[in-house]
Amino acid sequence: MITHRSKSFIYTDHKPPKDEAAVNAKLLEQACYVRKLMAGVYTYLPLGFRVLQKINQIIREEMNSIGGQEILMPALNPKENWQTTGRWDDLDVLFKLKGKEGKEYALGATHEEVIVPLAKKFITSYKDLPFYLYQIQDKFRDELRVKSGLLRGREFMMKDLYSFHADEKDLEKYYHKVTDAYFNIFSRCGIRNKTHLTLASGGTFSKYSHEFQMLSADGEDKVYVCQKCKLAVNKEIKSETPKCPECGANDFKEEQAIEVGNIFKLVTKYSDPFGLRFKDKKGQDKTVIMGCYGIGLGRLMGAIVEAYHDQDGITWPISVAPYQIYLISLDNKSVKDLLSQLDRNGFDVLYDDRDVSAGVKFKDADLIGLPIRIIASAKTGDKFELKYRGKSEAKLLNNVQLIKELKNNG
Amino acid sequence: MITHRSKSFIYTDHKPPKDEAAVNAKLLEQACYVRKLMAGVYTYLPLGFRVLQKINQIIREEMNSIGGQEILMPALNPKENWQTTGRWDDLDVLFKLKGKEGKEYALGATHEEVIVPLAKKFITSYKDLPFYLYQIQDKFRDELRVKSGLLRGREFMMKDLYSFHADEKDLEKYYHKVTDAYFNIFSRCGIRNKTHLTLASGGTFSKYSHEFQMLSADGEDKVYVCQKCKLAVNKEIKSETPKCPECGANDFKEEQAIEVGNIFKLVTKYSDPFGLRFKDKKGQDKTVIMGCYGIGLGRLMGAIVEAYHDQDGITWPISVAPYQIYLISLDNKSVKDLLSQLDRNGFDVLYDDRDVSAGVKFKDADLIGLPIRIIASAKTGDKFELKYRGKSEAKLLNNVQLIKELKNNG
Repeated sequence: MITHRSKSFIYTDHKPPKDEAAVNAKLLEQACYVRKLMAGVYTYLPLGFRVLQKINQIIREEMNSIGGQEILMPALNPKENWQTTGRWDDLDVLFKLKGKEGKEYALGATHEEVIVPLAKKFITSYKDLPFYLYQIQDKFRDELRVKSGLLRGREFMMKDLYSFHADEKDLEKYYHKVTDAYFNIFSRCGIRNKTHLTLASGGTFSKYSHEFQMLSADGEDKVYVCQKCKLAVNKEIKSETPKCPECGANDFKEEQAIEVGNIFKLVTKYSDPFGLRFKDKKGQDKTVIMGCYGIGLGRLMGAIVEAYHDQDGITWPISVAPYQIYLISLDNKSVKDLLSQLDRNGFDVLYDDRDVSAGVKFKDADLIGLPIRIIASAKTGDKFELKYRGKSEAKLLNNVQLIKELKNNG
Repeated sequence: MITHRSKSFIYTDHKPPKDEAAVNAKLLEQACYVRKLMAGVYTYLPLGFRVLQKINQIIREEMNSIGGQEILMPALNPKENWQTTGRWDDLDVLFKLKGKEGKEYALGATHEEVIVPLAKKFITSYKDLPFYLYQIQDKFRDELRVKSGLLRGREFMMKDLYSFHADEKDLEKYYHKVTDAYFNIFSRCGIRNKTHLTLASGGTFSKYSHEFQMLSADGEDKVYVCQKCKLAVNKEIKSETPKCPECGANDFKEEQAIEVGNIFKLVTKYSDPFGLRFKDKKGQDKTVIMGCYGIGLGRLMGAIVEAYHDQDGITWPISVAPYQIYLISLDNKSVKDLLSQLDRNGFDVLYDDRDVSAGVKFKDADLIGLPIRIIASAKTGDKFELKYRGKSEAKLLNNVQLIKELKNNG
């Protein structure tokens, strides 16, 4: 697909915004991926929406591959459900509102309060278990500090998966499956090598919960990475256990990190208050065992930018880049044939057809950060210059060579 | 793709729910497409989510085909933006809330208050015009009466497109393009033949606005369809104009209808209060001219069900059906080969592999309403029974004939 820059809602700004401290927000605003509406609340512009869709699709595929069934729950939640779990009063980030008829609502900060009573309406027997429901949907949290751009928001898109089991053994099995799926997601988003499974405090019901922490100098979290087995632990766990719970080694390195995912064994924490029960094989009444698993999509996008940028702009991994190719034509060189060839071969191209200087186009190409830049110029005759973002050397290739190269690397 | 019914979160109920009056809600709840969380607020279950995605994709393709660029705006809106237009006080369905730090928010009931100041941050010149931005996103409206199932909700998914022009002539041109795109959408969703372009009062800035009204016995609206040219007018316009504004005829038929889309010439209604201006070719300062165009996705889904059902259940058009084929195997007849053949040929199949009676499966097939039912049975040897939902005659086809038939009609 070919998109003409001159017809696109893309307005870059080479000066960083004054009201953003985080690198991800600065670059994403400068390159016109997102725009802040107010603290912690962003609009995704056409470029940013495309990245969001790519991440969305990767997550969806991985969730479906572990049996996840996609649903969509409302943001508007009845007060009663949140009272049942005690979180109407206890969850301090919960947004509350009152409707015209005096009815009170919460804005979903997470969705146990909706999905557990939903499941209760349908399931009755061990034959109904296990099952796995997920959604990709906006969450609302009244956070006090929202200075980290897309990393922490008051409204943010989240994938939340909930699993329902007959016993803890089955939960344990699925929990490992989700862990693998999460690493697949981070791998496909290009951040697997920086992301560590991290033990965190599990609350009342489970010894540990697990976070996925991506090491990043500006991250909000502090983690301790075992230099032998690469498991990480958070501060709380580090205080409790001087040795690595995984391999027993005692060589931790302190790092700053961004939490890019988390998984919890809820066990009966939410099925209990709602009375989500089932009849087992012997006809006995039992409580459903649950797990929950979250990934913030905007946060993941922000984390990718924290990991992939240089002094000139973003350096997207190709899997989540809004387009693969940034095409620049100089000296009015015709690119008509090239465009139709690229289109025919299924490449997504942002063609900078604006009437501005070569310098402006080059700077924009770097800032926007598509993985491949192609320059067509009268000076290079029937050859095109191909350069990968972040690499300095360029290649001169003719038509056939160019398409071949792109097919191998695009 | 093959989905096994036994592993799916699908629980049908052949008794209609007591707390639903509208046909669409009754059938969609009974067939496990949606579940009501509270009045006017629904969860989309796996079947319903698939329909929503099909509708989503149809709308997205049609919006992209008229130059629409997809974005995503937040539901959480700052109070100030709604004060600027006066709608903080005037829009009675606006949900309002207060955050921890005393900051007040509106939940987006529509998005002029976000998109106009957004556009103002970027555009300066006639060279930036026209452009068209749309999103598919949840809206919130504190409606008093929400008895029509998916037709009127307090939270609902909407496609809202906004167009920005240098003059009214350009708006007029695009307005017609959107009208055509809307009819394409309704055509692809199977309701074009029942849907009439309808003149409604346009408010201060335009003589008429236009609604797309689908005739339906239980619809909330009343329209008057010109029997000569098929244009419709609403009650208000009918009082003003005894003759058809399109063809001059005087032969209206009163009908009940569901509004499945609407388009407005906003002109400067929202660009004025925010001061959204541009420099024209002569360097003169002018106000941007706008249009806005909405389609509710849940409402459209509900309207399709109102148009497509019979006494046994839903009768989905194939374009929006969650799967194309409902496959039933009787007498333990193996369908292994058939399943892999259907999968290989790209069909989406819901395979009812449950250990329940044939009667239960037949009733569910009708209620869920997939366009094609296939029965494999030992009694019919190497032939399969194919029946289209809503038709009484069935065909007996062998393997090769079956795939051929499906390729022509699936």
